[in-house]
Amino acid sequence: MAQRISMAHGEGGELTHELIKNVFMKYFHNQTHARLDAAILPWNSNEIVMTTDSYVVKPIFFPGGDIGKLAITGTVNDLAVSGAKPVAITAGFIIEEGFSIRDLKEIVKSMALEAEHAGVQIIAGDTKVVERGSADGVFINTTGIGQLFEQRLEPDAITEGDTVIISGPVGEHGVAIMSARKELGLITDMTSDCASLHHFIEEVVTNVKGVRVMRDPTRGGLATTLVELCEDFRFDLELEESWIPVPDAVHGACDILGFDPLYLANEGKVVFIVEAEQAKKMMEVIKSHPLGASAQVIGRVKSCDNASGKLYLKTPIGTTRRLFRLSGMLLPRIC
Amino acid sequence: MAQRISMAHGEGGELTHELIKNVFMKYFHNQTHARLDAAILPWNSNEIVMTTDSYVVKPIFFPGGDIGKLAITGTVNDLAVSGAKPVAITAGFIIEEGFSIRDLKEIVKSMALEAEHAGVQIIAGDTKVVERGSADGVFINTTGIGQLFEQRLEPDAITEGDTVIISGPVGEHGVAIMSARKELGLITDMTSDCASLHHFIEEVVTNVKGVRVMRDPTRGGLATTLVELCEDFRFDLELEESWIPVPDAVHGACDILGFDPLYLANEGKVVFIVEAEQAKKMMEVIKSHPLGASAQVIGRVKSCDNASGKLYLKTPIGTTRRLFRLSGMLLPRIC
Repeated sequence: MAQRISMAHGEGGELTHELIKNVFMKYFHNQTHARLDAAILPWNSNEIVMTTDSYVVKPIFFPGGDIGKLAITGTVNDLAVSGAKPVAITAGFIIEEGFSIRDLKEIVKSMALEAEHAGVQIIAGDTKVVERGSADGVFINTTGIGQLFEQRLEPDAITEGDTVIISGPVGEHGVAIMSARKELGLITDMTSDCASLHHFIEEVVTNVKGVRVMRDPTRGGLATTLVELCEDFRFDLELEESWIPVPDAVHGACDILGFDPLYLANEGKVVFIVEAEQAKKMMEVIKSHPLGASAQVIGRVKSCDNASGKLYLKTPIGTTRRLFRLSGMLLPRIC
Repeated sequence: MAQRISMAHGEGGELTHELIKNVFMKYFHNQTHARLDAAILPWNSNEIVMTTDSYVVKPIFFPGGDIGKLAITGTVNDLAVSGAKPVAITAGFIIEEGFSIRDLKEIVKSMALEAEHAGVQIIAGDTKVVERGSADGVFINTTGIGQLFEQRLEPDAITEGDTVIISGPVGEHGVAIMSARKELGLITDMTSDCASLHHFIEEVVTNVKGVRVMRDPTRGGLATTLVELCEDFRFDLELEESWIPVPDAVHGACDILGFDPLYLANEGKVVFIVEAEQAKKMMEVIKSHPLGASAQVIGRVKSCDNASGKLYLKTPIGTTRRLFRLSGMLLPRIC
């Protein structure tokens, strides 16, 4: 592998995967919870789910949110897609010398507001300051703990024919960040979809049986998220390209800049895999919620037996191609 | 207050206190756990203690440790002084583009080793990469959860005459970092005292009754730590300067650079306040453990009724002066 860290190591794609495998997992291998994303921990009669994320988004204020809001919604959503109700969050700030205290107040206010809205407590914090030029404004780590929903997920029950559903259109956060970065010369009125999804997710999971697994397709986009899922649980999946909801502004931005909407980050979407028989009921429940009003069925599980974990995309002209993890550079510091 | 963040906002002293009060607590005020250091959270029949810290120490490799070891010991110790047995830790990395993967492996290996030694699991992680010049090498956030020891602390029982004990000499981590920063021109063979203290602390708390409260005097040093404690629990405390163990090399470094050993960071020490009658028994238990072999009684609680929370230092010549929080700059990026 490489000798030095490149920006692509932080894109959530192939190189991030390699870094996790060859560096973090290599030395943390003796730890029981291998995936290193969210972990479930037995706690006497209960179980705790715990997850961590650092936020380095650039710019720190963007249409539809800021780094503070994102630091809450991102961690809340990681817990929710792990099948848990978020309970408490810690916040660690690394601030660059010279950073505006007014901006810091805006960010902290925005965190407090989103935490209140989401119904989670911010229970502990830490502040470090580094010299001018040793950080870029402010970085925030949030770590959350949550309690498993009563209704458990069944990833091991994933079977041929299971339905894949996305709760809404893809690419909004990615395009909002791109247009906020003036240097790209992209002008859109797209706002980030960043939102806390756990109330919505809890409602879906409580009312629909047969939910196998969920993910929030953030860094790396829908394609990378589903590739990871296929590999983790060893099934093949086929997406119907024409079924995937992509807003015109996302299409437009991708055409101009040469990006693929399936690799753009989302911060308020969830992708479900559900037993085929429950798909209709699930679509009803999802679409009755504001956060799921534009949900779509986008594909199905093709095979499970002897599957090596491949993601396929069926195009409108009838051809099928394999999708891989995001490889190389797309848009650094998206979250 | 100031308009912009200065390095002193990160020193753990007066300005850090102001920042927490005027920015973080202002907006997080509706949260139940006010101290924002470690928090205790009810969890059905149990209680969880949770704490977070980001590590930005410079240089990342120093005599006696590195940023990885420190990220484990620091969070382990925060849990232990809160009266809890560390159970699980998450790790969030922010890495500068171009950082050496070999160094990253060293750091991760050192974390894994210290976690194994301390008996805690690293259960979840996150990696972000920022452009060259947008961070300084690597920053690590660790967040830990723990379970309260059976023996509970009694900070509200603090009373006049209670004894203050420190587990060993002060200033070693501070001086080790200073001499690792070649630009200060300080040459010593001092190594950092950084160590996981929870086995030691659990042994003390289990075998000695009447332990009121404990703290690890890290950033801001023994003086700042005790000022915070006096203010939090509204008691006055008097230290005997000549009883405080200060290694010769620490004295020497402080003489040269104009620092005060009481404000230097420690990463492997704990200060206890204990009922006076238990102090002798406690010293026996502490001194029988390698991490407490050089422990000393250093002072006592002077008054509790109507106390406003002041820390005093009685000097060898018989005068007494008041000690305050660290104010202004001492040594940035000590942890």
